[in-house]
Amino acid sequence: MQVDLNCDMGESFGAWTMGRDEEMMKYISSANVAGGFHAGDPHVMRRTVELAKAHGVAVGIHAGFPDLVGFGRRYLRCTPQEVQDDLIYQLGALREFASLYGLKVQHVKPHGALYMMMADDEDLSRAVIDAIQRVDSSLILYCMEASATYRVANEMGQRVAAEFYADREYANDGKILFTRKVETALDPVKAADRVLRAVRENRVTTAEGEDIPVRVDSICIHGDTPGAPELARVIRQHLMEHGVEIRPFEGASA
Amino acid sequence: MQVDLNCDMGESFGAWTMGRDEEMMKYISSANVAGGFHAGDPHVMRRTVELAKAHGVAVGIHAGFPDLVGFGRRYLRCTPQEVQDDLIYQLGALREFASLYGLKVQHVKPHGALYMMMADDEDLSRAVIDAIQRVDSSLILYCMEASATYRVANEMGQRVAAEFYADREYANDGKILFTRKVETALDPVKAADRVLRAVRENRVTTAEGEDIPVRVDSICIHGDTPGAPELARVIRQHLMEHGVEIRPFEGASA
Amino acid sequence: MQVDLNCDMGESFGAWTMGRDEEMMKYISSANVAGGFHAGDPHVMRRTVELAKAHGVAVGIHAGFPDLVGFGRRYLRCTPQEVQDDLIYQLGALREFASLYGLKVQHVKPHGALYMMMADDEDLSRAVIDAIQRVDSSLILYCMEASATYRVANEMGQRVAAEFYADREYANDGKILFTRKVETALDPVKAADRVLRAVRENRVTTAEGEDIPVRVDSICIHGDTPGAPELARVIRQHLMEHGVEIRPFEGASA
Amino acid sequence: MQVDLNCDMGESFGAWTMGRDEEMMKYISSANVAGGFHAGDPHVMRRTVELAKAHGVAVGIHAGFPDLVGFGRRYLRCTPQEVQDDLIYQLGALREFASLYGLKVQHVKPHGALYMMMADDEDLSRAVIDAIQRVDSSLILYCMEASATYRVANEMGQRVAAEFYADREYANDGKILFTRKVETALDPVKAADRVLRAVRENRVTTAEGEDIPVRVDSICIHGDTPGAPELARVIRQHLMEHGVEIRPFEGASA
Repeated sequence: MQVDLNCDMGESFGAWTMGRDEEMMKYISSANVAGGFHAGDPHVMRRTVELAKAHGVAVGIHAGFPDLVGFGRRYLRCTPQEVQDDLIYQLGALREFASLYGLKVQHVKPHGALYMMMADDEDLSRAVIDAIQRVDSSLILYCMEASATYRVANEMGQRVAAEFYADREYANDGKILFTRKVETALDPVKAADRVLRAVRENRVTTAEGEDIPVRVDSICIHGDTPGAPELARVIRQHLMEHGVEIRPFEGASA
Repeated sequence: MQVDLNCDMGESFGAWTMGRDEEMMKYISSANVAGGFHAGDPHVMRRTVELAKAHGVAVGIHAGFPDLVGFGRRYLRCTPQEVQDDLIYQLGALREFASLYGLKVQHVKPHGALYMMMADDEDLSRAVIDAIQRVDSSLILYCMEASATYRVANEMGQRVAAEFYADREYANDGKILFTRKVETALDPVKAADRVLRAVRENRVTTAEGEDIPVRVDSICIHGDTPGAPELARVIRQHLMEHGVEIRPFEGASA
Repeated sequence: MQVDLNCDMGESFGAWTMGRDEEMMKYISSANVAGGFHAGDPHVMRRTVELAKAHGVAVGIHAGFPDLVGFGRRYLRCTPQEVQDDLIYQLGALREFASLYGLKVQHVKPHGALYMMMADDEDLSRAVIDAIQRVDSSLILYCMEASATYRVANEMGQRVAAEFYADREYANDGKILFTRKVETALDPVKAADRVLRAVRENRVTTAEGEDIPVRVDSICIHGDTPGAPELARVIRQHLMEHGVEIRPFEGASA
Repeated sequence: MQVDLNCDMGESFGAWTMGRDEEMMKYISSANVAGGFHAGDPHVMRRTVELAKAHGVAVGIHAGFPDLVGFGRRYLRCTPQEVQDDLIYQLGALREFASLYGLKVQHVKPHGALYMMMADDEDLSRAVIDAIQRVDSSLILYCMEASATYRVANEMGQRVAAEFYADREYANDGKILFTRKVETALDPVKAADRVLRAVRENRVTTAEGEDIPVRVDSICIHGDTPGAPELARVIRQHLMEHGVEIRPFEGASA
């Protein structure tokens, strides 16, 4: 049994530090590298790729809206064409750095508000998947199972990794409860139990107390969740102790 | 006899238009596509690549300082590492769009203040050339013959295209007189004569009236020079009437 | 009989020019000066205030979302607090330049997507009006009569200027049809007739052909509408020939 | 005996936190509030003013180059006019927030590279002082005694506060050794001794070991110096124990 463990990385910007990337890299198998529009800059991107390389971690582009001050977490009504162009630009930038370090970009993960808007919008999902397929059909799209993105990916034959959020609550419809910022640290042991159950049984208990099915190809931990490195460490150890291997997802159809 | 004709392209930004790219594309053989830091955005970059493809024009990255409001024409004291990372980021973005349209990025042209600072700074030139060579050694660097850039390129075995500026005055040391903005249109016929002489005789008369030698692999016309399309049209026609073919430069050592 | 004539001004940015402010200033009585978030920069803002002063034109802050590449015309879901803070920041900047030239900032006009979102959102309108009233209760808010903004202003005792759009179509509900960009020039004579009727009879014919009432304290012409200066010139002349004086609105309750 | 204690504040940006403003506010008498160009945003600016108000701390504008990714610490060759316009814009924004909280903006402190460039450039210093005097002649300019800024201020009758840097080394010419970032925490006790001596005896020992005179109207601690709050606390206590009162500087001629 195996599962991928992904985290947002490279979210520092200029003189500002965000996340504890060096610690997190030890625990994860896939890094979502900020593309520079909602977070990250060229210098941070290079160092993040270098760090991923050093830890044998796969990289993907974490592409957000061009809203630095809002950290890409504010809904922005772009045209599908704008979203495509912004994605391709950021993806290309990351591929250049990855290539410099002998890495291949493995996946695409839309960030924040873009991720959530796609989850409810088939046209926007279609635009993003179309861009991905024209650029490199081997790229894996990270998304939730309970989303328009997942359904459209299925129609379009797009490889996906269904994500399970270790640090977000679930609604009964299988969607996560979106929040701009989590303020308090989670109990890592409880979170690890919940993750293990999701991986082994494909089930999660929602915020309302219902038990629902959930597909889990990759576990996501946000880098700006308080206590993220400890959370990642405990989850990783818990999974491994129960015979679950942590490694990049090879990809499968939606 | 042949020569390349290059122009800055893709310098529009969002709702703001700069240059008359559709007209200019008819006359040039190489487009320096703004990388998004001093000008351009992902949408503009895609359309510019599309336009270049339609006209059979080669593309290169026009990489400037991250100074949008200053249009990359203000000296900014970055570290060599920052300049490298900014270049690689912008180059990667352009390569992704180029690849989407079946084009290869042919060249690198530093923009504005970066170009001028490199011309006087061997370390900065070395940093940029080092980045280019690590990324793709087939890339051609555009620079002036009378520059530290050219000398360092020579040392490092970097392929260059020596540029002749159709719309800038020359000093006796072979450098152009840098200006943030040219305000008045040039006489296209006089400019074309000066260009033809530079191409055929490798000589130019400076602002001070001296006659100096100049190497010309590529002729540059700034897209924001008033009357740029007419200037390009007349120069192109004048060169062709005198048996000079306009085509991308194949590259040669400095 | 009198009416105000307002236009968006100061929308150039760095090396990019937008609008023909010098020409437009001759025809208008109130300038909406871009605050620097969707357009404009400190240099442009100063020159715009200087130009307004020279022409005896009143100034107001044209405050948009922090979305330069989208020109503030993309819906962005900010919190009311974010909108307030962004407004106060831009307003303060303009007041400093206005004070330097001995002018007083007369009005606040939300720009683009913010204007349209407020028109449909009472909470957002309330937040903006609350900020205005805490800062300077003498400021006039520009808005459409058919809007949540107008209704809330009425409740809160906020002075408003009801705008009539010379270059936008109206729907039967009295709202304008929002568009990111108008591509073709209008017929100035027809537009002037429509404006005159709106001013004198307070009526306009909608895109669907219905005749509806409309309050007109100020006529708005967008600076980026093709042919804007000619449109402004003809409208101004037409109004004056029919005895309508063009001057800043003194303000009245909604 | 009294002295002012100032610190850079409001340098967070969007989702990124910098400095420990809530702790620092307890110890200082003047806050240099980031103007939004090198750091800070409207939301952060408002909260910083609110915090200063709550602690009875005076506020000034900390105006930097428009270089967010470089934190305003990279030399940028702007025109004097650009520097003036950028300053006035940021100053106005802060004055609006200050006015909202019943505060008056007390001072102007150029930030980072601008501060250092002015220290060596009389024309640039003159431009900044000219802008300050046209806007509000009661504003106090923070600068080093050993600088062109101080000399020009003297000529122009500009009120200044001569700063002593608690966390920077001095050269024999009385200038601080500029650095983009201090990496390690200082010994607070040693620093406090050095500060006390500077305040009481107006003398400091340079990095080269020489003893030089220094004028001290205000002590500066950088908010991003590691251990800044502890440093501020110890310095404040040390000064008070030796009978030095910490309060905003009333201003005096250079």
